[in-house]
Amino acid sequence: MTLPLADVGEDPSFDPATGERTGGVAHSTPEEVARVLDLAERAAPRLSAASPVARETWVAAAADAVLAASAELVDLARAETGLGPDRLEGELARMAASARFYAAAAVEGSYLGVSRDDLPGGSSLVRWNIPVGVVAVFGASNFPFGFGIFGHDVASALAAGCPVVVKAHPAHPRLSVRLGAIVRGALRDASAPDGCFDVVVGFDSGLRLVDSPVVRAVAFTGSQRGGMALVERAARRGVPVFAEMGTVNPVLVTPAAASDRGAIARGFVDSFTLGAGQFCTKPGLILVPAGHGFVDSIAEAVSRVQAAPLLTAAIAAAYEGGVSQLVAASEGAPATGVTEPLPGFSAAARAIPVALDRLTPGSRLLEECFGPVALVAEYDDLESALAALDRLQPSLAASVFTGEDDADAADAIARLTGRVGRVAVNSWPTGVATTWSQQHGGPWPATSRPEATSVGAGALSRFVRPVSLQNASTDQLPAPLRPENPWKLPRRLNGRPTLPH
Amino acid sequence: MTLPLADVGEDPSFDPATGERTGGVAHSTPEEVARVLDLAERAAPRLSAASPVARETWVAAAADAVLAASAELVDLARAETGLGPDRLEGELARMAASARFYAAAAVEGSYLGVSRDDLPGGSSLVRWNIPVGVVAVFGASNFPFGFGIFGHDVASALAAGCPVVVKAHPAHPRLSVRLGAIVRGALRDASAPDGCFDVVVGFDSGLRLVDSPVVRAVAFTGSQRGGMALVERAARRGVPVFAEMGTVNPVLVTPAAASDRGAIARGFVDSFTLGAGQFCTKPGLILVPAGHGFVDSIAEAVSRVQAAPLLTAAIAAAYEGGVSQLVAASEGAPATGVTEPLPGFSAAARAIPVALDRLTPGSRLLEECFGPVALVAEYDDLESALAALDRLQPSLAASVFTGEDDADAADAIARLTGRVGRVAVNSWPTGVATTWSQQHGGPWPATSRPEATSVGAGALSRFVRPVSLQNASTDQLPAPLRPENPWKLPRRLNGRPTLPH
Repeated sequence: MTLPLADVGEDPSFDPATGERTGGVAHSTPEEVARVLDLAERAAPRLSAASPVARETWVAAAADAVLAASAELVDLARAETGLGPDRLEGELARMAASARFYAAAAVEGSYLGVSRDDLPGGSSLVRWNIPVGVVAVFGASNFPFGFGIFGHDVASALAAGCPVVVKAHPAHPRLSVRLGAIVRGALRDASAPDGCFDVVVGFDSGLRLVDSPVVRAVAFTGSQRGGMALVERAARRGVPVFAEMGTVNPVLVTPAAASDRGAIARGFVDSFTLGAGQFCTKPGLILVPAGHGFVDSIAEAVSRVQAAPLLTAAIAAAYEGGVSQLVAASEGAPATGVTEPLPGFSAAARAIPVALDRLTPGSRLLEECFGPVALVAEYDDLESALAALDRLQPSLAASVFTGEDDADAADAIARLTGRVGRVAVNSWPTGVATTWSQQHGGPWPATSRPEATSVGAGALSRFVRPVSLQNASTDQLPAPLRPENPWKLPRRLNGRPTLPH
Repeated sequence: MTLPLADVGEDPSFDPATGERTGGVAHSTPEEVARVLDLAERAAPRLSAASPVARETWVAAAADAVLAASAELVDLARAETGLGPDRLEGELARMAASARFYAAAAVEGSYLGVSRDDLPGGSSLVRWNIPVGVVAVFGASNFPFGFGIFGHDVASALAAGCPVVVKAHPAHPRLSVRLGAIVRGALRDASAPDGCFDVVVGFDSGLRLVDSPVVRAVAFTGSQRGGMALVERAARRGVPVFAEMGTVNPVLVTPAAASDRGAIARGFVDSFTLGAGQFCTKPGLILVPAGHGFVDSIAEAVSRVQAAPLLTAAIAAAYEGGVSQLVAASEGAPATGVTEPLPGFSAAARAIPVALDRLTPGSRLLEECFGPVALVAEYDDLESALAALDRLQPSLAASVFTGEDDADAADAIARLTGRVGRVAVNSWPTGVATTWSQQHGGPWPATSRPEATSVGAGALSRFVRPVSLQNASTDQLPAPLRPENPWKLPRRLNGRPTLPH
């Protein structure tokens, strides 16, 4: 798909709680984008050569600066997203903590994959990972901090040694620009390489990033349509796009778990309406054993959910349209949350009953509907529920609720493992911890890169590639391979893993 | 690009040394391909659940069987490729050794990336890599064993736990089918899961593999055109294609290395005419300091090279056409190897002098010409040579020849590292050892996946993807994460690497 480049305009800013326009941010000019990319390209070798410890000081300085500006940034985010201050304060704090985590993971150094083999005849072969170069980041509407200007993609790329250019999100352009200025200023004050981070504004600016020969990788969080358009566009010049996209995350309740009906019903509704249902890990479908009253319990819990503003007018319109399509496809009578008042872009929650045999490939029921809606399907026997799960699109996450010593659980977990990035047992999929063992990804079309994660230590690996150096003399070796191990890295020597002293 | 499916025919077999047709192999029918894929799909969970030690016994049995049939297989390969028996015997032995290496790398288990985090509140998060499922392999014309029916792609996929369906190569169809039967029989006799390996014949059969929902990854070795067609076709359903394609691998001789002129000239000619120049790591261009007589020395060495058969009539025709284009684009007077006799598909070696400033993007001079031809360019100052290297397409490998205490070498190595998969110092790029530290890959368009390697321990990582399991009870954990560590894997615990006892 070729998208045309238009004249420079602006990204308008709206308050979702009222629906009123509150300002706007001018698009970057083509010259500005070119200058940002030129500086980023020049920063690349300096950032690549810097030790992970040096990068850690830069990232930490930016994290400190963001925390110091928390009150201002949360106010801005609230005005542009309609999300509550507690949620936003927590998200901002987690953003700063995650940035420090990525920097620490870089210092630990496993992501560099350092290896040396002594070959017969006195020669040698070494291998390590190098940063790919400039990374373009397209953040998400729904996590203005976590997947925004200094979120997981940006911090992991910087920690891995790549300059980053972020496209301001049109759902929160004023926050994007202000947060970008704070991060850029902190990096500059901490003596990070000039040009290693910047923000550009506007749809066309984003396309210029993807088309630039300077950009060597793209990270994207958003819709399937947007993600696949970028994948296709960047494929023309062999540039990887790590797109995390939306699919339906299923929840399976085994028969042995039916005794927890009340808690599961309330937990499900809390999870799918969290942040007004605007989570990529939202549970979009629950499969429950028939005859235990789950549908009624869920309907009852939904009826108490207050309406909440969605992020944009377009998302609110798509939500209402999507709900209508789901109701039509399911022929179910939806349970509805509180519908009055509905100011701004607000929307009421919905839970839609659906017969299991309607979950068939190609059905609208198998596609994500962004917002506080979920499907509820009863099953008579577990095998028919597992078969229905096999018909869904692969997804980022799934949950399984089990009983004590539940023989069905292992089978369900194993089948789901083959179709998702993460299986949560007796827990909801919406919480995503930033740790070494996190996998926030999944098979296509949940992501464009099943081998990648956008959260957790593995996130750094998206932005490096391996190289080998054969028969080099000691003084020709890069820092990760020098005999004195100046970066204190774990290294593999003749196939044997070794840890630094 | 949509390629039509034609009726079933056959792949003819030719002897390149004479040009005569010696037989043929019938294409697989659509029903046969479907049956092979169905069996492979059913084998996938069994192969995935098998321990790496079990997989090692299966792979070793196949390696033994191939070695036992060495004489027959080398004869068949010689009759279809025109390559010499010493080369083919060595390649077959290395194929068997590489298969054992991949199985041993699987047993070592780092490729499983096992990690466990204990989370606040008593929950846990574990992460490990699972096999992606059925892998389709398209081998290379030029390495009938190394990148063929039981070569690097096949053995690394089996070791990683993935069933493999290989397309027989049309340049050596009889060898493909016979080698496939031997490997299949050995796997069956060793009690490997039914359907975990098979071979299909015919262009259309290959397309059926790429289009099948059963196939989850594709490995390809060959031309840019063929590789990118598969990449594009598989992208429709999010399937990764690990394509290793052809570009020009450069050699830089620094001024300090000029005193080794004679050895370098002979070594260069030996390297670019090895296997009649039919190596993806062939050095296709050498940059030498002017005024040292390199051009004459290389021409002298080329003049003694005997003509050798190319693999197919099409390759022979493309070689002669390519040489003509290179001569026209360079306006150089080529040095030519021995031209009489030229039976079958034989071709004479060429070394073509070219002015440095003709190496510009878009020129035919920057594209691979498969066969025993290379370009020779003199430079006046090293910076102009390095600038010329920056204008080339990224490549699999590069070589740098240096003197003692050569201050220019480090800079050249660093610049080349950013553009290739492997830099060989004072050695030729044509030898590729199967070790832990090998990187046989490179930036696009040298490959479609710069993060991947098709040789070395990293080759396994192409065929797995990470998953996380959250809050699982001990009895719900998969083997790699069980407390007793039954597979004796290296594992990361709360961020800290640990080795098995």
